[in-house]
Amino acid sequence: MNIIYGIDLLGTMVFAISGGMAANRQGIDVFGATFMGFVTAIGGGSLRDVFLNIRPVWVEDSNYLIAIFIGVFISVIANRHLYNWAKTLTLFDAIGIGFFTVVGTQKSLDYGSSNIAAIMFGMFSAAMGGVIRDTLMNETPLILRKEIYASACLSGAILFVILEYFGLSRGWNAFISASFVVGVRLISVKYNLSLPTVSPVEDKKS
Amino acid sequence: MNIIYGIDLLGTMVFAISGGMAANRQGIDVFGATFMGFVTAIGGGSLRDVFLNIRPVWVEDSNYLIAIFIGVFISVIANRHLYNWAKTLTLFDAIGIGFFTVVGTQKSLDYGSSNIAAIMFGMFSAAMGGVIRDTLMNETPLILRKEIYASACLSGAILFVILEYFGLSRGWNAFISASFVVGVRLISVKYNLSLPTVSPVEDKKS
Amino acid sequence: MNIIYGIDLLGTMVFAISGGMAANRQGIDVFGATFMGFVTAIGGGSLRDVFLNIRPVWVEDSNYLIAIFIGVFISVIANRHLYNWAKTLTLFDAIGIGFFTVVGTQKSLDYGSSNIAAIMFGMFSAAMGGVIRDTLMNETPLILRKEIYASACLSGAILFVILEYFGLSRGWNAFISASFVVGVRLISVKYNLSLPTVSPVEDKKS
Repeated sequence: MNIIYGIDLLGTMVFAISGGMAANRQGIDVFGATFMGFVTAIGGGSLRDVFLNIRPVWVEDSNYLIAIFIGVFISVIANRHLYNWAKTLTLFDAIGIGFFTVVGTQKSLDYGSSNIAAIMFGMFSAAMGGVIRDTLMNETPLILRKEIYASACLSGAILFVILEYFGLSRGWNAFISASFVVGVRLISVKYNLSLPTVSPVEDKKS
Repeated sequence: MNIIYGIDLLGTMVFAISGGMAANRQGIDVFGATFMGFVTAIGGGSLRDVFLNIRPVWVEDSNYLIAIFIGVFISVIANRHLYNWAKTLTLFDAIGIGFFTVVGTQKSLDYGSSNIAAIMFGMFSAAMGGVIRDTLMNETPLILRKEIYASACLSGAILFVILEYFGLSRGWNAFISASFVVGVRLISVKYNLSLPTVSPVEDKKS
Repeated sequence: MNIIYGIDLLGTMVFAISGGMAANRQGIDVFGATFMGFVTAIGGGSLRDVFLNIRPVWVEDSNYLIAIFIGVFISVIANRHLYNWAKTLTLFDAIGIGFFTVVGTQKSLDYGSSNIAAIMFGMFSAAMGGVIRDTLMNETPLILRKEIYASACLSGAILFVILEYFGLSRGWNAFISASFVVGVRLISVKYNLSLPTVSPVEDKKS
């Protein structure tokens, strides 16, 4: 339990860093950066909890908000250096989405959602924060571009539900499914893999 | 009840198709298309349920999610052909917003919202999915352009509340109000009608 | 209580005017303007209530929706003149965010959120409506630009929580904290103050 709680806080911080970095890139003030860190870190899980009709964990447990502030603080003071750490951040981000996928799927099942909904929530929890961040920044969301990002989360969530169905213990399931997400994401970044796109109609006409 | 449930699923599928088509137009991968189909089909009703503080129906009933997957599948495999079916889709979409307007208004009244709020929710349920879709696609939302779309939903929701006030049976009310929305929408598309806009200030100066 | 209720309705109306004005600037029809007025006025507080897992006040009390309709009506009929009243509107808007900050912080504490979450909610309640408005209009949200806007709300919410901690009566606390927000906002507008931004990386390289 303690380890999971710690990783959850760490994942929250990592996402806050990525939100703060997005704000920094556009010359936004520190309050704007905090806001961006906040929605990026907490957007996905909160949306899941709202649809499950439960109260998000950060409303009562202020450790999550403190983790976000630390993340934003890091993104602001280490602004220039973070770009040199891009690879490190990709690694952290991959760990973050791996863990958030598992936590999201698990929580949804515990609160009585259907298996398919739990899979969607698992993906949401991990990928939605980035969607909100990119939407606010007026960019086409990362998950709507060709990169394998949401699809890594989705497949990890599906794996979790299947392993749960076959009665694997929660601990092993969490470890295997999260590792699967991290692996898929890192391999796709390393080899620049992407899913096939549906060709736009205009191209077909030419 | 069975017919209403079936139409609800059909409406969900139609909206998923329109979301998938929007994604296809921009060359987005199949997971992105699924995401777009999902938010388009479920965004409006979920937002209503969240404000009513109840759990959206698709969290527990996976038939809605299956309807969405079928819709997205159709949008992907029939990508090119769908543009030839534009008229058919406009008809389906009109039926969809007609039905969603009535379901949304009815559900809000049942859960104790005021008449005015029920009218807003009726419009929301029908039109909001498209707003989210267009916002994510970085386009000015359809309902904020001149076309008669949200206004058709709004007038249908008002009609429903008035007929409910005068004691008309739910079945007839649903049929009449939904038909009204469909009629207004189709007539406005056919004759290219639009509401008067408030002239921008710049124009007045010239 | 009566005065607070009245100010709450007035603040709602002022935000609806600003939403309607944003719609008018882009030549959007009256239903679109109503929609924009609605999300601007109600977006922030509703988001707070959704995360607190309670039902927003306007779902059952239709006075809030009536206040919005009046606000949108004003923005539409007084379209041209409102631009001459820009200073008056800035004043009203400042009063609006001051009051909404205090109401938001107070309500969050009453419903059991942590102090830090209450501060976030106080800022949200006041500033989020504008974020949604600007996002739908495809502009970089005001609060993400350099102006002191969200930061005024944030500091007011922090002040409220500190004074609450030291046992100041709710009435005095509300008055002092709201006045603080209004003062900070108006002074920053008058003297064109802004927070220091984190320099974008590109600038540093040159």
